[in-house]
Amino acid sequence: MKVAIIFGSSSDIDKMKGAAKALKEFDIQYEAYILSAHRVPEKLLETVKKLEEEGCECIISGAGLAAHLPGVIAANTTIPVIGVPLNAAISGLDSLFSIVQMPKSIPVATVGINNSYNAGMLAVEILALKYSEIKKKLIEYRKNMKEKFINENGKGVEL
Amino acid sequence: MKVAIIFGSSSDIDKMKGAAKALKEFDIQYEAYILSAHRVPEKLLETVKKLEEEGCECIISGAGLAAHLPGVIAANTTIPVIGVPLNAAISGLDSLFSIVQMPKSIPVATVGINNSYNAGMLAVEILALKYSEIKKKLIEYRKNMKEKFINENGKGVEL
Amino acid sequence: MKVAIIFGSSSDIDKMKGAAKALKEFDIQYEAYILSAHRVPEKLLETVKKLEEEGCECIISGAGLAAHLPGVIAANTTIPVIGVPLNAAISGLDSLFSIVQMPKSIPVATVGINNSYNAGMLAVEILALKYSEIKKKLIEYRKNMKEKFINENGKGVEL
Amino acid sequence: MKVAIIFGSSSDIDKMKGAAKALKEFDIQYEAYILSAHRVPEKLLETVKKLEEEGCECIISGAGLAAHLPGVIAANTTIPVIGVPLNAAISGLDSLFSIVQMPKSIPVATVGINNSYNAGMLAVEILALKYSEIKKKLIEYRKNMKEKFINENGKGVEL
Amino acid sequence: MKVAIIFGSSSDIDKMKGAAKALKEFDIQYEAYILSAHRVPEKLLETVKKLEEEGCECIISGAGLAAHLPGVIAANTTIPVIGVPLNAAISGLDSLFSIVQMPKSIPVATVGINNSYNAGMLAVEILALKYSEIKKKLIEYRKNMKEKFINENGKGVEL
Amino acid sequence: MKVAIIFGSSSDIDKMKGAAKALKEFDIQYEAYILSAHRVPEKLLETVKKLEEEGCECIISGAGLAAHLPGVIAANTTIPVIGVPLNAAISGLDSLFSIVQMPKSIPVATVGINNSYNAGMLAVEILALKYSEIKKKLIEYRKNMKEKFINENGKGVEL
Amino acid sequence: MKVAIIFGSSSDIDKMKGAAKALKEFDIQYEAYILSAHRVPEKLLETVKKLEEEGCECIISGAGLAAHLPGVIAANTTIPVIGVPLNAAISGLDSLFSIVQMPKSIPVATVGINNSYNAGMLAVEILALKYSEIKKKLIEYRKNMKEKFINENGKGVEL
Amino acid sequence: MKVAIIFGSSSDIDKMKGAAKALKEFDIQYEAYILSAHRVPEKLLETVKKLEEEGCECIISGAGLAAHLPGVIAANTTIPVIGVPLNAAISGLDSLFSIVQMPKSIPVATVGINNSYNAGMLAVEILALKYSEIKKKLIEYRKNMKEKFINENGKGVEL
Repeated sequence: MKVAIIFGSSSDIDKMKGAAKALKEFDIQYEAYILSAHRVPEKLLETVKKLEEEGCECIISGAGLAAHLPGVIAANTTIPVIGVPLNAAISGLDSLFSIVQMPKSIPVATVGINNSYNAGMLAVEILALKYSEIKKKLIEYRKNMKEKFINENGKGVEL
Repeated sequence: MKVAIIFGSSSDIDKMKGAAKALKEFDIQYEAYILSAHRVPEKLLETVKKLEEEGCECIISGAGLAAHLPGVIAANTTIPVIGVPLNAAISGLDSLFSIVQMPKSIPVATVGINNSYNAGMLAVEILALKYSEIKKKLIEYRKNMKEKFINENGKGVEL
Repeated sequence: MKVAIIFGSSSDIDKMKGAAKALKEFDIQYEAYILSAHRVPEKLLETVKKLEEEGCECIISGAGLAAHLPGVIAANTTIPVIGVPLNAAISGLDSLFSIVQMPKSIPVATVGINNSYNAGMLAVEILALKYSEIKKKLIEYRKNMKEKFINENGKGVEL
Repeated sequence: MKVAIIFGSSSDIDKMKGAAKALKEFDIQYEAYILSAHRVPEKLLETVKKLEEEGCECIISGAGLAAHLPGVIAANTTIPVIGVPLNAAISGLDSLFSIVQMPKSIPVATVGINNSYNAGMLAVEILALKYSEIKKKLIEYRKNMKEKFINENGKGVEL
Repeated sequence: MKVAIIFGSSSDIDKMKGAAKALKEFDIQYEAYILSAHRVPEKLLETVKKLEEEGCECIISGAGLAAHLPGVIAANTTIPVIGVPLNAAISGLDSLFSIVQMPKSIPVATVGINNSYNAGMLAVEILALKYSEIKKKLIEYRKNMKEKFINENGKGVEL
Repeated sequence: MKVAIIFGSSSDIDKMKGAAKALKEFDIQYEAYILSAHRVPEKLLETVKKLEEEGCECIISGAGLAAHLPGVIAANTTIPVIGVPLNAAISGLDSLFSIVQMPKSIPVATVGINNSYNAGMLAVEILALKYSEIKKKLIEYRKNMKEKFINENGKGVEL
Repeated sequence: MKVAIIFGSSSDIDKMKGAAKALKEFDIQYEAYILSAHRVPEKLLETVKKLEEEGCECIISGAGLAAHLPGVIAANTTIPVIGVPLNAAISGLDSLFSIVQMPKSIPVATVGINNSYNAGMLAVEILALKYSEIKKKLIEYRKNMKEKFINENGKGVEL
Repeated sequence: MKVAIIFGSSSDIDKMKGAAKALKEFDIQYEAYILSAHRVPEKLLETVKKLEEEGCECIISGAGLAAHLPGVIAANTTIPVIGVPLNAAISGLDSLFSIVQMPKSIPVATVGINNSYNAGMLAVEILALKYSEIKKKLIEYRKNMKEKFINENGKGVEL
């Protein structure tokens, strides 16, 4: 396992599937956990410790509202943490601010509101630094993305 | 000691003095701690446990930016937690949202942006339920506040 | 009766049920009132006075738009007032600001937008300071919440 | 006396002078009061009743933060109430929302943030419906305003 | 005719009906016009002039988006103008700001977003200053509103 | 004269100088006017008509608060109107929304808050379509801008 | 071809049709392209260069979220670029800010959120400066718009 | 060189120093570039290509207003890009939204407004995955941070 995906409620499963989708496209092993910084704080810390010991290299964490989960994880590990603000109120601004505005020293790498796919892609980019086979696939992915885009849209469009 | 005041940085001392001021007006014992949910998470949990054992009855916690401190405290105790959003960016909206939008089951009693005095007053109101001498003082305080207001402003004002 | 739940319109009943649900889980007696700071101001003040005389120990108040109800109640009692911002426009920001930004001396303990369940839980935490049987139940509640969470989510999740 | 100007603190005197200035330009009698919906609610209601009895025809009320003052006045009188949101936090949005978003049946005529002069002018326009000498002055005022504007600016400007 | 209701598009008819409803409850004559500050500026000015000549005493104007209509009307008359921000985008904040933030000297009496009923009620309050029969009805209306509210809600409510 | 610069108050002169600066760099003739849609609406319309007759080809208009000026000009001419939101309150969001959110059919070409220089540059780009000497200068300007940027910054920077 | 319409995804076709509609009403030739500043940056630059060579005179570009497309196009051409913020999140404010807040020297002429019709109309106004037949049609269009508006709405409306 | 720091103007040097400070603390080689996606787009792309060839492993990019720089870089490389929103207007929300709301497939790892130090720390965390000596230092850094925090703040504080 290289990546852990942690979020706070089974009601967020659909919003977090994008992260898994991106990782699958690169054959990157991941595990998903439902854990809460507020409801099971001890279990969360215990899991983060376990992830460190198992050599997990990236943690993706999604949360809504007062979204403390990614920041609390980041405070308890030196593994890079990617935060996904989930929209549950105020267009997701509460979640975005709660995740991105971390204090000095403990960053969370924040992606767009509900954009868990990009969290997965960011994990891919990070792992590609170390694993050359992922780097190769990433370069291929970009090339394919461009070709697909041009194939689909290159002939112009009727408005 | 009845109330603990916890905040994340010595740079917030001035903004948090209002809480102490209110408690002093009611001769309520308090202690102040600088602790961070992100920088010293273990020390924070340890302190919260100690506060519980010592019979602390109310925790006031101020924080800015991605203000996780009050919520993380609330998740680790059943003592009521009063949160003070401190303005460090975006007019304090990041802090307000990070504190008030707590998930179901773990509330933080949030007061106005930078309004630590009201956090102190809320602690007073809560303790007054249990301690009749505080209740008496609180009723007196309101009466005095009204009298003082009317003495100062009751004769109208020149514009 | 220990807790009063006051809100401004029968159209808010569904949004306020969470407060009652939390109180019921702790066998705390409550009464609910539909009252408006703008439509029946005299009746509101009269009811607040009656609640004080009857020994009510906590008032939960929900309101939307220019949500004056919690603040007006707080100004007329020393019982702690918990405010629930209800979303009727602008994602509930009008209501949140109208409730949380109270002036110095008269706090309202504000919880999240539409999160009346947390208002109930905050009342539970406040009453638990005085009533040891509620404290016991609260500690039990948290333990059960954790166990339930781990039972439901502890085996990981497929994404 | 035709107009009352009511606001909550001596610290708002400067921001409210614009209202008096406009009224003076039209020789409209006014009186100013410092009163608070939260600190001296009984005194406020008493004063509003007195204003009704004395035949006051318009109430201008300025407030900041959770600005309940104009709405609480409006709820206790049928005299038109003009609200001035004062900026004390969040660019004055808390105050604006607290004043303008009044529920059905109890309007507050809201003007711009910190724009107490326009509150005075709105009072002038309202009184001009009933008092033909004010109407005359108002028409004159507009004519003069235009002439003055054109005199000062009509020759173009160097950039 | 005492009141004119002016708005910019037939698509706003439903949102503006509240204003008419309030006026009807007080037997106040009104006329409604669809006019636009941007599409038919000359026709708008011509109509405003006609309204002045016919003795119109209050203009209610609703608009969405960059809502210039109430302000442009106010700039071309000394009749009081009541503005209703209509929500067409950004929760109606674009419209609210475009109406309430008028420059010094030319106020628009702004009511809540989509709250045309309150615009009608504000017109009633303004006309009640001059017409004693409207004043009487207004006092009656408030009394009935209270009685109706208490009849409907006075027995408490089950949650 | 090819471009007119219109704004509402002498207090905005400094904020609008950027527009003139850009036009001067391209030797484009312009004239500046202080005019207000609210204070001198007739004079404004008269000036717009005059500008049309004199062959003005682009109008730049800056305004703050409820910034109706650019939209009202656009409604009264078919000359392209460029709007500059000026920050006078709420970070300039009131002005931005009042200018950019124009209804269907009457656009205002909006540039950034306080960014009158870009309004000038947009006028240059528009005029460059018709006047080949301006086009040439514009291409030169871009080339120079790049060279200057690279000369100043191309050697890297010490942090 | 005089105008190019460029946007980032086939899912935006419906939102961008307004631009084409406006251009068709004036018989202005246009071509539409689906291109992305992030997915096919080289293809985008290549297309912009081609448009310049073919004498394209105006580029309309719509985008949502972090809407870089209009700004990136503007940075790579001296043809005027009209930006349409598309609402995909946060009421479209992310897109609006990403388009309108361009730095000094590289303007994008921004229209309202989702208002691609106005982008088309702005292109018409710009082209009308150079092409007298378009100018004629534009003046006609405005006249017809007014007549149609008055025909439809001139007889008043029942509320 | 392992990290590149790219921002758009010499006026941002002070705001970006935090990134360099963090990297220096870990003896990580970096180079800083002033480059603009809008003013020197070709030079930017050329530099990004050069960085790829030289084996750069992380790019930190700060920008204000319509902050396209980080996203444009990310679109042209597979190296992870860390974005720092700089506050130049609207409390930095324009910049935050322009950076964090990237479309599917091309993420930017966003940190807090003006918080370039955290961008540096995030680069450290990412590089620590690959370089064990950085990992060791990072674990040391956290330990020291905690010790320093407790030494400075552990004795409580006077309020």
